Parts: sequence; structure tokens; C-alpha cells
Amino acid sequence: METDWAETARAVRAAGRAVAAAGAEARSEALRRVAAALRSRTGDLLEENAADLAAAREGGLAAPLLSRLGLTASKLSGLAEGLERIAAAPDPVGRYLRKTELAPGLILEHQTAPLGVVLVIFESRPDALPQIAGLALRSGNGLLLKGGAEAARSNAALAEVIREALAPLPAAAVTLAASRADVARLLALDDCIDLVVPRGSSAMVRAIQGATRIPVLGHADGVCHVYVHSAADLERAAAIAVDAKADYPAACNAMETLLLDRVLVERGAARVLDALRAAGVALHAGSDCPWTLPPAPALHHEYGDLACTVQVVDGVRGAVEHVGRHGSGHTDAIVTEDDAAARQFLDQVDSACVFVNASTRFADGARFGLGAEVGVSTSRIGARGPVGVDGLLTTKWRLTGRGDTVAPFSRGERAFTWRPLDPAG
Amino acid sequence: METDWAETARAVRAAGRAVAAAGAEARSEALRRVAAALRSRTGDLLEENAADLAAAREGGLAAPLLSRLGLTASKLSGLAEGLERIAAAPDPVGRYLRKTELAPGLILEHQTAPLGVVLVIFESRPDALPQIAGLALRSGNGLLLKGGAEAARSNAALAEVIREALAPLPAAAVTLAASRADVARLLALDDCIDLVVPRGSSAMVRAIQGATRIPVLGHADGVCHVYVHSAADLERAAAIAVDAKADYPAACNAMETLLLDRVLVERGAARVLDALRAAGVALHAGSDCPWTLPPAPALHHEYGDLACTVQVVDGVRGAVEHVGRHGSGHTDAIVTEDDAAARQFLDQVDSACVFVNASTRFADGARFGLGAEVGVSTSRIGARGPVGVDGLLTTKWRLTGRGDTVAPFSRGERAFTWRPLDPAG
Repeated sequence: METDWAETARAVRAAGRAVAAAGAEARSEALRRVAAALRSRTGDLLEENAADLAAAREGGLAAPLLSRLGLTASKLSGLAEGLERIAAAPDPVGRYLRKTELAPGLILEHQTAPLGVVLVIFESRPDALPQIAGLALRSGNGLLLKGGAEAARSNAALAEVIREALAPLPAAAVTLAASRADVARLLALDDCIDLVVPRGSSAMVRAIQGATRIPVLGHADGVCHVYVHSAADLERAAAIAVDAKADYPAACNAMETLLLDRVLVERGAARVLDALRAAGVALHAGSDCPWTLPPAPALHHEYGDLACTVQVVDGVRGAVEHVGRHGSGHTDAIVTEDDAAARQFLDQVDSACVFVNASTRFADGARFGLGAEVGVSTSRIGARGPVGVDGLLTTKWRLTGRGDTVAPFSRGERAFTWRPLDPAG
Repeated sequence: METDWAETARAVRAAGRAVAAAGAEARSEALRRVAAALRSRTGDLLEENAADLAAAREGGLAAPLLSRLGLTASKLSGLAEGLERIAAAPDPVGRYLRKTELAPGLILEHQTAPLGVVLVIFESRPDALPQIAGLALRSGNGLLLKGGAEAARSNAALAEVIREALAPLPAAAVTLAASRADVARLLALDDCIDLVVPRGSSAMVRAIQGATRIPVLGHADGVCHVYVHSAADLERAAAIAVDAKADYPAACNAMETLLLDRVLVERGAARVLDALRAAGVALHAGSDCPWTLPPAPALHHEYGDLACTVQVVDGVRGAVEHVGRHGSGHTDAIVTEDDAAARQFLDQVDSACVFVNASTRFADGARFGLGAEVGVSTSRIGARGPVGVDGLLTTKWRLTGRGDTVAPFSRGERAFTWRPLDPAG
């Protein structure tokens, strides 16, 4: 029998509401129970994961994917600790954004509220499941999950452990979708699902963005730039460029294009290029590059590997223009000792993250101190940049009166005061 | 020759960036120049408006639409004052949301930033044009405008006055699109336009939502509820129900359905129903209604007129369920003297605005004290409820270091401090 996903999504929403209504402490306790269950059920979970791994090996899955697929006792224990940290963090639901007396006796409150139903679609890594479930439960949301086929048994086992540990909160708050066909049906439910969070390759994110009317939190690509300004400290520039590319070449916040100020072509640039070469980075020539290098496939190109494009630009203005035209609005950095140039770059580069004298690799929820990360968003509506639990929240306006009507205000018999109030009061 | 709207949108974005880069004071001054121009060019503007009005009368436009189309010297002077208020308000761009020391010398700032390009589509009312232009310019955005055909001459004249007054800021920051065909082309530019704000009928908003992948700020309908709880003060309930429906029956925040607690059917309900009847409200029976009334067309129905549906529900739980199933997530109110019932309704009703003992008509940017209103949003991603200038902003993360790289943190040689800093410092 076919699953009626609209019906399922409504059940997930109702369960999410029950989780939200249970209150902050009940949600924290549920997360602690889930953490304990991950520890006590480690044997079962590893057994299911071993079956996935065996099938994947037989199917010839590449080694890096196998390592992402694999669970270990220490990974599970780390996940349990993560859930306990989320449980101990302040409750994100009902946080005051504003409190105002509109008129005597008429109090307006603007507070955070759960989004409702979040659909998370992730590839291979089963350890994403408990993490995202923790964030969703903490923020009072219902969660629909779709994992990769290669992790099917691991995901099913993880979901089951979590659902059992939720009681007395409703298990439907964490619901796992199984087949690939389900995804298309889920993505059509723009009246039942509030947010889609894809965690996987650029191709997967792009496919999802193209297939749904539901808002998507994420980024299809990360073409990040490091611009070495004429007034750069070249040691810093070399260190930042190497870190931005070589620390983790496949990361979305890794540098894909090195922008060199034209002033540096004759002297200075070599210091940075040599450092990259020494770090094993293959250099490719952009459309304006005086060195003999193999050409870059495109100015907007994500290597995802120990390689980058080298492009020469004219001043901050040239760098800003290049980033605006060929970047992906993710993270872009300038290296300079000139405050005015730094300020110009910060103001005019229109990306989610803009850095001065720091590696693009800092663009990350954990490094930003946001706690657990939902994802990195390059969209401009809703959360932008590295997104913590706030990305799973919306807001709600609450107004409490004593029988107030607008007519006396329109007639001038009553006047608005719009007096800001202390939310704690 | 056909307009290349992608090219135009890019020019609008560049102009918006120039407006943003010019700084807060330059933007304020531009708004003051626009205000002065509206006053000094009043004669020309009224002349063009008179031509639109004459054509509309000839075409048989209904009286209420004619009155919305009409400009007057006092309307123009009110618009000029509104622009001066926006110019005098604190700059919304670059407001700090968070400032953190990630590690000594590595400072993270989270600040508001312009969205980029906003497309506003409005019907008849030409006075919406200067208002929305003021909000867009103040927040450093480029603005694409599309008005109704019946206001074509008025809109063209208003846009011209504004564009002339902008200099030395680039005129392209406010660009008017002309023909109906243009709208479809503009709505296809999801890579060039960041937000669409439709200001018009439900049908128009729904058509736009269905025709674009660009985020839409608005609401297709406003099926707002007033729930009279068993512990309601019936005088307050009657006053609120009458105000919520009769103050402005066509408003999106007007009551469309009166929910009466079953306990009140035998005694109490009559007080509220009589008050509505006395105010000229035509009552219609919902699916559960013991009184002999003409049936409501549907439980989710917006009359937009002096009429409402009457439905009986069982307790707060029944009211919450009805609102969740048949409402539009806009604004819903409970009337009760019971704090626990009020809290339950506030917590469990999942609408943008939830009120206790206050008329739904308070759900409005001006009444909420937000200054000028961009619109009322029922979407859950981005701004929700009545939206002020914040709805035209996104955020940007800025990180300033001294050559910082992530590798030493990964190796444990440096540690994050995540120390909150005073944004003013």
C-alpha cells in the first residue's frame, strides 16, 4: 500500500506540536533519554551499520564514502554527548525578540516559535540523523527524515532507537521516509512541510531546489574567494590561502579562487603561489592570469579538491566585482593591512560571510559558536550563513489586552504609546 | 525592442548597492529630496492622476477602486511626511544582531544588510509607490515596481519625480516596469530578484505565488477567527467581535469566523450574535451551528464584507483544532477571563498573530509600532506577521582577524573563546 505522505506530514506536525507543548524541560529530558539509548543500544546500532557497510563494500562504494557511512562506538558516544549539550543549552523556543506596550493594558510580545515540519534529506552519513533529530526536537519541530539507500539499515535502527526513547512524547515527531520515490512526493507537499534541509553534494542540493516550492535551507555550491590586496602582509596572505584551500579541500567553505591584486604580479604574488604549490595545490589560470598554468574550467568553478583558480584583479573594486559576478555568495575574504580597503570589501561584498585577514574555513556553525549546525545557507530570506538552531524557528506575535478594540484609536479617543518593555519583566 | 529584464534587474541591483554604499546619511537626504519633490511637483502629479481617473471613469471602474486610484494634495503631503519620518528613523542597515570574540584578535559580527533587489507589484493605489520606494531606499535595496494599468500615468509620474530627486544616487535604484507581460518575465528571474511583495487582492497574491520561485512576502488570504471561550466576559466578546468584523470588513485582519464555545449555546452566545446583527453583520452557519442561518460557503472562507461564519467548538482544544485546520495562519483571537485557557490558546494556535482579549484588527504594522509596513506575511521563513522595514533586510557575517587560520584550532594549539562582546564597543 502506498504511504499517504500528506497524512504522514500532518501527523508529524501534530507530533511536533505535542513536543513543543510539552515544554522546555520535557524536551531536554527526551534528548537525554535519546542520548542514553544511543549508548545502551550501541551494539545493535553497530550491527545494522556493519550490514550496510558490507553491502556497500560488495557494491564497490568508494573508500571516502565508506568512511562516512561507518559508525563506531566512539562516533555514537560523541553523538550522545552532542545531544546532551543540546539538552543543556537554553531553550530556543519562546525567546523574546521584542516586548512593547501598544497602549496601557495592551501588551505585544514577539517571540520565537517552532517552524512546524522540517524535512531533512541526507546522503550516506547516518550520524547526521541523531544530530538533526536533536536540533528539531529541542526546537519543538516535527521531523521527516530521508537518508541514503546505502545507509538504510543504519538509519532505520537509529530512528527506531530515537522514537522508542521519545516516549511519552509521540514517536511520530521523528519519522523516517524510506524509498527514493518518497522524496519526490514529499517535495510536492509545500502546504504540509515548512522547510527542506538537504545535507549532501551540490548536485543533490541543486536537484532538490529545482524540484520543490518548499523553502530550502542550504547552498548548492561554495565558490569562495581569497583576495590578496596590494597592502597585504604576504606571510599572512600565504598562510590564509593555504589554510583556506588545503585544510579540507572538499569543504564548501574552502577557497576555490585566489584573487591577486595586479600590483602584486611583479613582486609578492610568487610568495603566495609558491606556498600553495608547496601545500600540493594545483593552480589553474583564470581569464586574467599572467602565469603559464592549465586553464580553469570556468571562473565559477568548485574544485572540491587540492586545486584552485588564480585570477588577477584591479584593486578592491575589481575584487568586489569579480566576487559578485562569479562567486556563490557563501564566504569571501580579503587579506590587507589597509583599514579602508578592508572596510570597502566588508561593505561591498554581498556574501553571507565576508572576512578580513582570516581563512574562509572559519565559516562554520561550530567555529562561529552557534552550537550544532543545521547547515550553511546562501539564501537571503530566512537564516543566512552558518545556521544554528535558529534556522528551525519562526516567530509569533502575541497580543494580550483587556477587551481592546481598534475603533477608539481610530476615533482619537485612545492613543498608542508603543513603549518598549523589558522582556524579562 | 523587448526589454532585457535580467539586465535591468542587474542594473537595479548595482544601483541598490550604490545606494547602500552611499551611507545612512546620504540615503536619508535622498528621501528628504524625494519628499520635497513630491510637494513641489504636486500640480504635475495631480494632472497625470486626473488623466488616469478620467480614463478609469470612462472605463466604468467601480467607485471604491476610483477612490483608491485618486491622489490629492493632502495624500501627497501625507506621503512626503511619511518619507521624512522614514528618513529620520534610525538606519536599519548594519544593525548589530551579535558580536563575538571567537578567539583573541578574531572578532565576528552579525549585522543586518540589504536584501538586494525587491520587486513590488501593486494594484490601483499609486500612493503605495512612494511609500515602498522610501522603505526600499532607506534599507539600501534596489526596487523594481509594477503598478496597475489603470494607474499607469500616475505611477510613471511618481517614479520620474522620485528618480530625478535621487541624484546623485543612481536613478536605476527605482525602476518602473510597464506592461502586464513584463510581470511574467520578472517573476521568472529568481536569480536576479530576491523578494516579491504583492500588494493587492487575494487572487493576485495567489497568482504570483503560483507563478514564481522568488520568495513572496505576503498572504493570500486572511481567514481570522475570534473564539469566545466559556469564561469570556460577554461584553468584551461582543465588542471585540463587532470591532474585528465591522471596523473594516474587507481588511485581511478582519474576523471571518466567530467560534463560540458549546457551553455558551444555551446562554451567552445570543449577546454576541445580537451585537453582530446590530452592527449589520450577516451571519452564516458553519458545519456545527444550532441556529437557523444561511449556510457558509466553506469553513475556510473570506467574506471581505459585513458577513461572517458562526461555528460552535468544544473548548480551547476544539478552537485550536478548528483554527489549525480552517484558518490561514494570519491572526486569531480568544476572548476569556481564564488565564490558563488564554495561555493554552496562545501556545497552541500556530498563527503569525495570536491575541487574547483584543480585536484581530490590531494585526497591522502601524498599530504594532513598526513604522511603515511592507506587508503582512503568513509565510514561516523570513519575516512573519506585520512586517516593517526588517522584511527588506537580510544579514551578513563579518569576521576580522590578524592572519588567523583554522589549522591551529584543529591541532589544539589555539582555543575558541566565543566571548560575547558589546556591539557598541
